Amino acid sequence: MAKMMKAAIFAEANRIVLDDKPIPEVGPLDALIRITTTTICGTDVHILKGEYPVARGLTVGHEPVGIIEKLGSAVEGYREGQRVIAGAITPSGYSNACLCGCASQDGPRTRHGFKPMGGWRFGNTIDGAQAEYLLVPDAMNNLAPVPDGLTDEQVLMCPDILSTGFSGAESGKVRIGDVVAVFAQGPIGLCATAGARLMGATTIIAVDTVPERLAIARRMGADHVVDFGATDPVEEILRLTDGRGVDVSIEALGRQSTFEAALKVLRPGGTLSSLGVYSEDLRIPLGAFCAGLGDHTIVTSLCPGGKERMRRLMEVVATGRVDTGPLVTHRFALDDIEAAYALFSNQRDGVLKVAVTP
Amino acid sequence: MAKMMKAAIFAEANRIVLDDKPIPEVGPLDALIRITTTTICGTDVHILKGEYPVARGLTVGHEPVGIIEKLGSAVEGYREGQRVIAGAITPSGYSNACLCGCASQDGPRTRHGFKPMGGWRFGNTIDGAQAEYLLVPDAMNNLAPVPDGLTDEQVLMCPDILSTGFSGAESGKVRIGDVVAVFAQGPIGLCATAGARLMGATTIIAVDTVPERLAIARRMGADHVVDFGATDPVEEILRLTDGRGVDVSIEALGRQSTFEAALKVLRPGGTLSSLGVYSEDLRIPLGAFCAGLGDHTIVTSLCPGGKERMRRLMEVVATGRVDTGPLVTHRFALDDIEAAYALFSNQRDGVLKVAVTP
Amino acid sequence: MAKMMKAAIFAEANRIVLDDKPIPEVGPLDALIRITTTTICGTDVHILKGEYPVARGLTVGHEPVGIIEKLGSAVEGYREGQRVIAGAITPSGYSNACLCGCASQDGPRTRHGFKPMGGWRFGNTIDGAQAEYLLVPDAMNNLAPVPDGLTDEQVLMCPDILSTGFSGAESGKVRIGDVVAVFAQGPIGLCATAGARLMGATTIIAVDTVPERLAIARRMGADHVVDFGATDPVEEILRLTDGRGVDVSIEALGRQSTFEAALKVLRPGGTLSSLGVYSEDLRIPLGAFCAGLGDHTIVTSLCPGGKERMRRLMEVVATGRVDTGPLVTHRFALDDIEAAYALFSNQRDGVLKVAVTP
Amino acid sequence: MAKMMKAAIFAEANRIVLDDKPIPEVGPLDALIRITTTTICGTDVHILKGEYPVARGLTVGHEPVGIIEKLGSAVEGYREGQRVIAGAITPSGYSNACLCGCASQDGPRTRHGFKPMGGWRFGNTIDGAQAEYLLVPDAMNNLAPVPDGLTDEQVLMCPDILSTGFSGAESGKVRIGDVVAVFAQGPIGLCATAGARLMGATTIIAVDTVPERLAIARRMGADHVVDFGATDPVEEILRLTDGRGVDVSIEALGRQSTFEAALKVLRPGGTLSSLGVYSEDLRIPLGAFCAGLGDHTIVTSLCPGGKERMRRLMEVVATGRVDTGPLVTHRFALDDIEAAYALFSNQRDGVLKVAVTP
Repeated sequence: MAKMMKAAIFAEANRIVLDDKPIPEVGPLDALIRITTTTICGTDVHILKGEYPVARGLTVGHEPVGIIEKLGSAVEGYREGQRVIAGAITPSGYSNACLCGCASQDGPRTRHGFKPMGGWRFGNTIDGAQAEYLLVPDAMNNLAPVPDGLTDEQVLMCPDILSTGFSGAESGKVRIGDVVAVFAQGPIGLCATAGARLMGATTIIAVDTVPERLAIARRMGADHVVDFGATDPVEEILRLTDGRGVDVSIEALGRQSTFEAALKVLRPGGTLSSLGVYSEDLRIPLGAFCAGLGDHTIVTSLCPGGKERMRRLMEVVATGRVDTGPLVTHRFALDDIEAAYALFSNQRDGVLKVAVTP
Repeated sequence: MAKMMKAAIFAEANRIVLDDKPIPEVGPLDALIRITTTTICGTDVHILKGEYPVARGLTVGHEPVGIIEKLGSAVEGYREGQRVIAGAITPSGYSNACLCGCASQDGPRTRHGFKPMGGWRFGNTIDGAQAEYLLVPDAMNNLAPVPDGLTDEQVLMCPDILSTGFSGAESGKVRIGDVVAVFAQGPIGLCATAGARLMGATTIIAVDTVPERLAIARRMGADHVVDFGATDPVEEILRLTDGRGVDVSIEALGRQSTFEAALKVLRPGGTLSSLGVYSEDLRIPLGAFCAGLGDHTIVTSLCPGGKERMRRLMEVVATGRVDTGPLVTHRFALDDIEAAYALFSNQRDGVLKVAVTP
Repeated sequence: MAKMMKAAIFAEANRIVLDDKPIPEVGPLDALIRITTTTICGTDVHILKGEYPVARGLTVGHEPVGIIEKLGSAVEGYREGQRVIAGAITPSGYSNACLCGCASQDGPRTRHGFKPMGGWRFGNTIDGAQAEYLLVPDAMNNLAPVPDGLTDEQVLMCPDILSTGFSGAESGKVRIGDVVAVFAQGPIGLCATAGARLMGATTIIAVDTVPERLAIARRMGADHVVDFGATDPVEEILRLTDGRGVDVSIEALGRQSTFEAALKVLRPGGTLSSLGVYSEDLRIPLGAFCAGLGDHTIVTSLCPGGKERMRRLMEVVATGRVDTGPLVTHRFALDDIEAAYALFSNQRDGVLKVAVTP
Repeated sequence: MAKMMKAAIFAEANRIVLDDKPIPEVGPLDALIRITTTTICGTDVHILKGEYPVARGLTVGHEPVGIIEKLGSAVEGYREGQRVIAGAITPSGYSNACLCGCASQDGPRTRHGFKPMGGWRFGNTIDGAQAEYLLVPDAMNNLAPVPDGLTDEQVLMCPDILSTGFSGAESGKVRIGDVVAVFAQGPIGLCATAGARLMGATTIIAVDTVPERLAIARRMGADHVVDFGATDPVEEILRLTDGRGVDVSIEALGRQSTFEAALKVLRPGGTLSSLGVYSEDLRIPLGAFCAGLGDHTIVTSLCPGGKERMRRLMEVVATGRVDTGPLVTHRFALDDIEAAYALFSNQRDGVLKVAVTP
């Protein structure tokens, strides 16, 4: 009889509950890891609310830190007991999408196709990380050993938040001397701010409505902060840039209002790098878009995964280039994950990210 | 007293008329060229209809072939009597926009700014090419000598049509082995088709509603043609690509319907390269956009100008890589330009482009 | 007792012989394919001569076309009996090198390292393709189904020759309107010529000493041919380009003389894309290198592998963009492979490539 | 009669002397600036020693900070009295080289050519900056206003040192998480170290033989320093990187030994970004080059110029991202420039850069 474990599962809309599930069987390419720390993502809240559909009974969560419990028979290059993380996105490495430089859109293995968001499997199409154990598919592509000396919390942002946030700056192709605006300073926006700084932007303007978040934005590298609630951010950013606009604007919320403001402050020839998850059709305002003649680029990014990405992000942390410490504001035992969801989904008590430990 | 010339000017909405204007004075950085052949662009029709505002009395047109009549006092490297073209877009070369790789969005010279479409001056902010003489600003940046052996009509598509069309494929970063769909096969779409072929796409799908245009699309390099009127192009393209979609889709019309179809056939991770001039806000459908998580890129391009661009395009023609001959369907004297507008603006008689000769 | 097969093995310097070896066992990630056609590469001749060391008894060859005989237990997405090719380079897909965009330099799996040429395994570090059966490692990353209607010989150049040749143009970042020189028109140089054409170069200058090869170069897309033996190629190319030099030069031989000429004809700011395998230290002449101030790029490429690359190359052939037919000049049975080596290694009888069929 | 000024001129090998020359006439595209601060470059020492030939009587120097004294008749967008800098390289903006993205290799204006280092004019082909006045050609392309609040010394490194140093990291395409080695920590190497840090490298290894320079390297962003004299830098860097080598190595000296070490520590697929000015043919060691099969890139960069580049570099300084203060170690009046050369050319007294004020 299978051994059992605790797991936070999607029961029905507005109900994620802790339940008992069997510890998974390990296939030849898999690894089983014992979770030591995980966290809750905004996407999980969409799942909780029934806005993003997943199967009933699915274990939620996609941000694992843990210890290798068991390796699949075909897995080489790791040892049991090793501390590892895996990205939120776990591409196979061998799909045509992966081989095309599009690993997050990992497609069916049998043909040359792509599957939208196909690389996002944890807590989406397979059981996720908010549990005592997690089965990691295509382990050789996805397991990244944690460097000695880093705590679980120090690497907890790597699987999703840091990877996604940085990709906002990377897809925007931030260059030395750029002016960058980042719309929304939740965990991902804060990491986008840090990423813009890390890539050499010289003027970084962080936008949000919450003073505490704007204060943290300054710690992450923002030169200016703009309160979206108190002022018109478009006017304010144009004023700060002497009418010129920004080279790169990063959208990190997923709303029409921020998308639109991000386009309106963008100089001709600039790039709007979008990280937000939208919930309705987007409108591109004709004027800000120069009727299609502004040499603009709009680019979207899904969290880059894979062990090499994770290795690099942990290097960023290990060398002190970026400190994600301020992002972890609350801590819960896995047993209390329902309370964690209540806090996080209502954005109470200044929460940014919670650390959940089985 | 200034010598006079004939010029097609914007008189008022729905009236472009031939009138007498003084031959322009030549400033130190300018060149005066005597037009030998020019043409009418779709944009000129927007001007004619009053949809795109220009000053009353402005000479229209931005596609010049001619002979250098007089050089400005500071212009070196050319001689009077030389046959030249200039791009539709005439960047200064020395604005910060130019130095940023964004020459079409040439900004004010005095600060580090960008001006939307600032590089488009002919027939927009200064007198244009549908006249006996044309003043070319920043001549050293913009005059491109015509190689021996090429006729006026052979190079007539270079200033705008070929440059814009190719930029659709270039901004889409077409690679060897790509599948590319091109929406609309007017002159620019046909050149986008040719550009995709020239860059190594192996499956090119041309979409239009006019059978004659689809026939020319095949001559320009399309492997498949799809009649937008007769079939659902999204379904048809997904069928042709075995459900996979295209790597790059090029929009060359400027309508919501084509923009939307171009996005719907795009694989995750693909690029929508937009050339169209839109006349209203665009809508991005949530599903085709994967809610912002599809690693999509949407890029717009304004016609690249400058003499090096023109030199390269004329090389494409001179070496027979692309034959733009089929695009010139009608010929008019400048004296008959009002008739040319009547034909062209109503898309009568299978017109693609007209050659107008003073 | 293991079933036996015929295989061409490296016995000792100057002796590759046909011998009997056991048909390999199939591991969980492997596939066994029955070879239907293979060929001999210049690299195999280096092995034959003892210039490139491999283990005694190793089966030689890295260009397989065949039929899946047996799939490993963890391999999904294929079926036995399917016609496939695999690239000469068979990256794992999951090494950090692969995840870094450097799949040919596939490194050890256990750490973040790279191994020079680590992706080249067939006929180098594991048994190769000149045999009745071939074991393909990491099959899901490497097996590419052959499209219906293509013959073995039509796809025989894809695993190495076409992939390497095209990479010369790709790594050179050939753009529309470029002038490209290709030094040496052996099979790889001829495919580099074809690749430059496919990517939009408008002037392609092919250099070799053999008139027959120069004649084929014209069929593959060269605009000009230069006989290295009869004229000074540097002078001739500078004459053809009106003193300007070339935007991209491709070295496809591996000698100091061609490397040096490729640099000497390169314009400042241009790219020397090197495909050759050198056998001694290279010298960069100070003058042609502008003492390090010429904004030059020198880039080397090892044959890109993986099933997506193979898929795209077969598309190039299937759509008739490039015809590699002229490259297969001779045919041998596997039983006669020693004769094939004698012909090929001595470059007798105008040989370009041989087709070898078990 | 022309007014006279003091200027440091090349008299003959080993003699740069202060002399009287006429203040230059201002052509239509020029600007005359009154130098307030300038400096001496390693290249000037090559000129001094007669190793790099310039015309006798030429004013030396290419790093100007000053005040606009007079504008050419065709120059718009500036005003007399404005504080400005100009890059060491002063491209025209309108040559085909400029329009090709190769402005430093600015070619003849009359054809589509490139001229090696053609953009370097100050103190090379026209009179330079070590004088009371400097004539800046193509002023609209090259004059960059100094932001309020920055001192002359703060921007003195922008025209050459910072621009060249950063280009080492930029041409190397440093990415977040890269390991970078920088060979030689003279002024340019120190700025390459700073540039690698600014672009997101997480491990930066600075190599030199002078302890003081290694100490400053740490202040500029180096994580590790290696004494080329005391240890074998190749072994030490391989040790520091756990055998993996570096993603990008930057050569900033111009010697065979550093070039070779830079290649030997480079991982397969990595980029050697070369900034040094070499004085003899370079040798590429076969092994480190993987016989041409290592997917290596070797790229050289000449100092990027133009006003947009200068604007961005001054932003880097103004925002405190990089502090070039430690680089200015000595100060001289223009009248004492011969003493400055004596100190600088002999690298006495720990000199890095001198500030020279007329």
